[in-house]
Amino acid sequence: MSSAYSQADGHPLDPLTASEIKTAISVIRAEHDDVAFVNIVSLHEPRKAEMTAWLANPGKAPKPARVADIVVIATGGQVFDGLVDLPNRTVIKWELLDGLQPIITLEDLNAVEHVCRTDPKVIEQCVLSGIPKEDMHKVYCDPWTIGYDERFGNQVRLQQALMYYRPNIDDCQYQFPLDFCPIYDANKQAIIAIDVPKIRRPLRKANIEPINYHPAAINKIGGYRKDLKPINITQPAGVSFNITGRQIEWQNWKFHIGFNYREGIVLNDISFNDRGEVRPIFYRLSLAEMVVPYGNPEHPHQRKHAFDLGEYGAGYMTNSLALGCDCKGAIHYLDAELPTRDGGIRNIKNAICIHEEDAGILFKHTDFRDESSIVTRARKLVIQQVFTAANYEYAIQWIFHQDGTIQPEIKLTGILNTFVMNPGEDTHGWGTQVYPGVNAHNHQHLFCLRVDANIDGSNNTVFMADAVASDAPVGSPENFYGNAFSARRTKFSTVADSMTDYDGSTSRTWEICNTNRLHPYSGKPASYKLISREVPGLLPKPGSLVWKRGGFARHAVHVTKYADDQLWPAGRHVPQTSGERSLGLPEWVGDGNESIENTDIVLWHTFGVTHIPAPEDFPVMPVEPITLLLKPRNFFLNSPVLDVPPSFASTPSQVAANNSGVLNAPDTTSELAFNGDNCCGRSTTSKL
Amino acid sequence: MSSAYSQADGHPLDPLTASEIKTAISVIRAEHDDVAFVNIVSLHEPRKAEMTAWLANPGKAPKPARVADIVVIATGGQVFDGLVDLPNRTVIKWELLDGLQPIITLEDLNAVEHVCRTDPKVIEQCVLSGIPKEDMHKVYCDPWTIGYDERFGNQVRLQQALMYYRPNIDDCQYQFPLDFCPIYDANKQAIIAIDVPKIRRPLRKANIEPINYHPAAINKIGGYRKDLKPINITQPAGVSFNITGRQIEWQNWKFHIGFNYREGIVLNDISFNDRGEVRPIFYRLSLAEMVVPYGNPEHPHQRKHAFDLGEYGAGYMTNSLALGCDCKGAIHYLDAELPTRDGGIRNIKNAICIHEEDAGILFKHTDFRDESSIVTRARKLVIQQVFTAANYEYAIQWIFHQDGTIQPEIKLTGILNTFVMNPGEDTHGWGTQVYPGVNAHNHQHLFCLRVDANIDGSNNTVFMADAVASDAPVGSPENFYGNAFSARRTKFSTVADSMTDYDGSTSRTWEICNTNRLHPYSGKPASYKLISREVPGLLPKPGSLVWKRGGFARHAVHVTKYADDQLWPAGRHVPQTSGERSLGLPEWVGDGNESIENTDIVLWHTFGVTHIPAPEDFPVMPVEPITLLLKPRNFFLNSPVLDVPPSFASTPSQVAANNSGVLNAPDTTSELAFNGDNCCGRSTTSKL
Repeated sequence: MSSAYSQADGHPLDPLTASEIKTAISVIRAEHDDVAFVNIVSLHEPRKAEMTAWLANPGKAPKPARVADIVVIATGGQVFDGLVDLPNRTVIKWELLDGLQPIITLEDLNAVEHVCRTDPKVIEQCVLSGIPKEDMHKVYCDPWTIGYDERFGNQVRLQQALMYYRPNIDDCQYQFPLDFCPIYDANKQAIIAIDVPKIRRPLRKANIEPINYHPAAINKIGGYRKDLKPINITQPAGVSFNITGRQIEWQNWKFHIGFNYREGIVLNDISFNDRGEVRPIFYRLSLAEMVVPYGNPEHPHQRKHAFDLGEYGAGYMTNSLALGCDCKGAIHYLDAELPTRDGGIRNIKNAICIHEEDAGILFKHTDFRDESSIVTRARKLVIQQVFTAANYEYAIQWIFHQDGTIQPEIKLTGILNTFVMNPGEDTHGWGTQVYPGVNAHNHQHLFCLRVDANIDGSNNTVFMADAVASDAPVGSPENFYGNAFSARRTKFSTVADSMTDYDGSTSRTWEICNTNRLHPYSGKPASYKLISREVPGLLPKPGSLVWKRGGFARHAVHVTKYADDQLWPAGRHVPQTSGERSLGLPEWVGDGNESIENTDIVLWHTFGVTHIPAPEDFPVMPVEPITLLLKPRNFFLNSPVLDVPPSFASTPSQVAANNSGVLNAPDTTSELAFNGDNCCGRSTTSKL
Repeated sequence: MSSAYSQADGHPLDPLTASEIKTAISVIRAEHDDVAFVNIVSLHEPRKAEMTAWLANPGKAPKPARVADIVVIATGGQVFDGLVDLPNRTVIKWELLDGLQPIITLEDLNAVEHVCRTDPKVIEQCVLSGIPKEDMHKVYCDPWTIGYDERFGNQVRLQQALMYYRPNIDDCQYQFPLDFCPIYDANKQAIIAIDVPKIRRPLRKANIEPINYHPAAINKIGGYRKDLKPINITQPAGVSFNITGRQIEWQNWKFHIGFNYREGIVLNDISFNDRGEVRPIFYRLSLAEMVVPYGNPEHPHQRKHAFDLGEYGAGYMTNSLALGCDCKGAIHYLDAELPTRDGGIRNIKNAICIHEEDAGILFKHTDFRDESSIVTRARKLVIQQVFTAANYEYAIQWIFHQDGTIQPEIKLTGILNTFVMNPGEDTHGWGTQVYPGVNAHNHQHLFCLRVDANIDGSNNTVFMADAVASDAPVGSPENFYGNAFSARRTKFSTVADSMTDYDGSTSRTWEICNTNRLHPYSGKPASYKLISREVPGLLPKPGSLVWKRGGFARHAVHVTKYADDQLWPAGRHVPQTSGERSLGLPEWVGDGNESIENTDIVLWHTFGVTHIPAPEDFPVMPVEPITLLLKPRNFFLNSPVLDVPPSFASTPSQVAANNSGVLNAPDTTSELAFNGDNCCGRSTTSKL
């Protein structure tokens, strides 16, 4: 075994190391001399059966071997899917793909702009738009995958170039969209077509003041506000978490933090130490896909429906985070190492940040009789990455709470995708003029959370819970005063049963249960409840292009029986899928007859937001958060946070004894905002 | 004018001062010698016309006079509503109420327990339940208003005593509920009846271990966790807000912080300084009512549907907050002064806390081409109170964001209301056994937010917005690819139009608009959008007791034309209303024909949560937050936070010039969690 790929001390779910990536590439190159571009070199995750055997007995069970999942593009443009057995340095799979295009890498994206600037037909269109041909260095493009365009199919690797202009190199280009769309052929490295709309919309007039968010622009309009005083967050005694390799332990939680080019952060083997019993909860948790359909029906805007994870990769696009900027307090970072297109290594320093935050009151109760009380503060743990998808940014937070709740939270920021509009043009409601001549189209951000459940073991069952009034009418003996209501629980026996939508009127939730472990008091199964209220549903219609390509988004919840390699619900290779035969989840759903009762299941949850833009979102959007909860119900014997030290606790007997023995441990670094009585605020208070 | 009630320097919406309260009481007592109990002495808010005239021109317009709103109970039990003109020391209204019972004060509550303990029939029931009669000092009751019970009506002032036992004085009583319910007559100061259920449920068996949350109990089961390291939050340069009297200014916001016995915090005259233009947004914002219906139909549980604000008062029940316990960082407090039942003053020290919090990333964007980027951190301002409603606590936060968003957030904690159950008894789904013999009934917490809108002036119009797919089918020329969608806006012309429910499938929102001020770019009216996703709807059926008494909860949104004194949507006096003729909002709705277009309107929004208890909620519930947003849309010309100083900002030209001139201002008190490379975490990272 060569030391180059040794991972003897590591965890089988650790991302490939730089040396493993290099090993994999050299093994492939040794066998295949036509590798033009390395597209993916990533951990091929161990088969679950093997992995769970090792997790159950890491000392004795065989440790799953390291295997690299590889995709390359050959000199002729052919695409190969491969697997490399790293310890044995052998290619164990090598498969030519047909009609499938792998993920677009950052290098793929960066190639297009230069080609656009020198293409005569693009130059011609720029000139028609009002840009002097000597200004082509001021022309930019956001090169998206083409999505799917029936005129071109999927045998040729294509990108569409969303065109912009920057009069000044530092201008926000999204205020200067252009109206035509070149199509780039990655094999030819050339523009093969340009979509030119029937109605032309020339470049925005020069007499409109540019809007920018960089410091020079802000200084020009009055400068920065000066009345914001610093807030310092420190942990002088250190953080409350421990990290061994990529495994973290915090407040009874333990899990492994993986990372890949595609999903970014992947949380593995999540367990909670419940008074000595280590209870598995989730085998694997990740954001597995997303789609951002735009709602303008004018050609070619239907092609704007990015599957950011499957088409570009939340790992490939992830930001290097900065201490004191992206995260405050005492932070631990994990780097990421990813392959470059030419087979080298790209290190993303601080790809993941890990920190704790004070989370307000955890619980409080006061007895009104004597004001005996308890108040305990909460803490949360945040595992975060931020990725940039061309114009937009997504901050993905995995928040762990002390009470056993996991809260995935996504903060949307960055810049709206924009298109040019003529003065006085009607948007027809498909978009909003957010700046003169700038039309921001309606869009949705629909995320698919993949929940590989392991609630007290792999045999789980999902129920849907709806809060409903009793059927018995007011005045009837069973419901005389009409106040009866309860949770109606519907068991999902088959995959077809599970394909369900959100119902706000019943506060619908979904419960992932272990029906083999009933709570000794409630008699209900140990469960984690999915509480998700931002579930707009896919607005593109059934049968539409987006509906066909993004089958996962047709319902808020699908549950499938676990199968190795069923990770990404829009398919393994997403660019240029036609959706004729929808890939990914619709394939796995099949006829829907498979039993999902008391077995190893995966729950797929699509949630998100419908965004009708407004000028407040421009030129850069204040964060808009989307959140949901995975919450233990009937899982713990009682509240699991009673042993979190309170800030204050007094009992009736202590109050009666003149507060003798009262526990008083407030945070002593907090202080009054205005020291002394001569301050405006304090004097007001004392005046009262 | 006597100095005793002088409020010359104050704001007309300031709560009554202690001296004003005393003045009001002495004026009343001088005229009426039969005042037995003072029930309410609170600011009678100035008429809006007078108030807005003064606000528009505080130097010259007459300052609204101070008037006290008074309710007293006379020696015979009669209830009087009065108004006292404070400067003139005259009673300007004195009205005998008929069939209306005013709010239950803390003193009213505290009177009942003692009477229960000495009442022979209660003692008899305690003995029947298994409590020795010498243990009556271990018997407790939570005295609720009776709600409404048709056997007793509303001429007599009543409370129902929810009974509990504490074997030890420090035991959590909610694990020892008793099965009978004494009815207390406040005038007679006696138990006049006891509701005894047909099926008896004796006291929980002594062999079940008690469950408690006080330190002695936690120490007995292993003690507190020791792995939680402190987080310190400090503002060495002071806070970013200024307070003058009760007016606060922070990050372009300015508003007045009122407080009353009923709603607790009331925010008045909220405006935003939009680049020099002070723009009014809300005239008055408060949590105006709430109802907590329980879902068990067995008599007399239908009476458990507390209107906590109207029946007990969020002000009367508010906690005195502690620095470093309820709030961390640099805190400013406001006290509250309220009348006592005997006409004295109760000072609640630190009734309101005001502080800032770091709020994560405000906005961020990175150009993928060159990694030029900007990242700016967000700040929020929190105005908080916490109140205890017998078993439950509610932490009410009014959160202000820099981007113009207001976020009311309610954190539920405290203890479940419980009832006794027999071993093996079926809960029939109306509750959950959260501990042996302890049945926590299903319930809802439905809150009514009162939004007295003032979006760029008092003439506002409300629209409902639903995100919907185009009607045009896939394949049609207007929607060939099927991706078209937009926001369907429905104008509320009349009150009847406005009575609407939440629709999760369309991500329904409501927009409070000023149609007289169209955005220069979008052409849409300046608006604040109500984004609220936790809107379960009232589960008690139409025609039920709760439905009749809590008319406001029948719909998620009602809009009425503004009228002075229409403040509290379940009526001014809520205890013992029958709901035959529903008081409050249903009265103001009337026939629904009133026009609410382009006029002074109030939006009433009912939101909340349906709570199916689980053992994790017991014995004290980890905080469960409920949140909603009031968000500016088409209000600001563009993002209003561009001038918030960034932590980092680089532009393409700076990156090209080797990062010369880059703005780099990270918070320097942040640090790496594990200093040095020999730490487990760092070495893992470097190994990668």
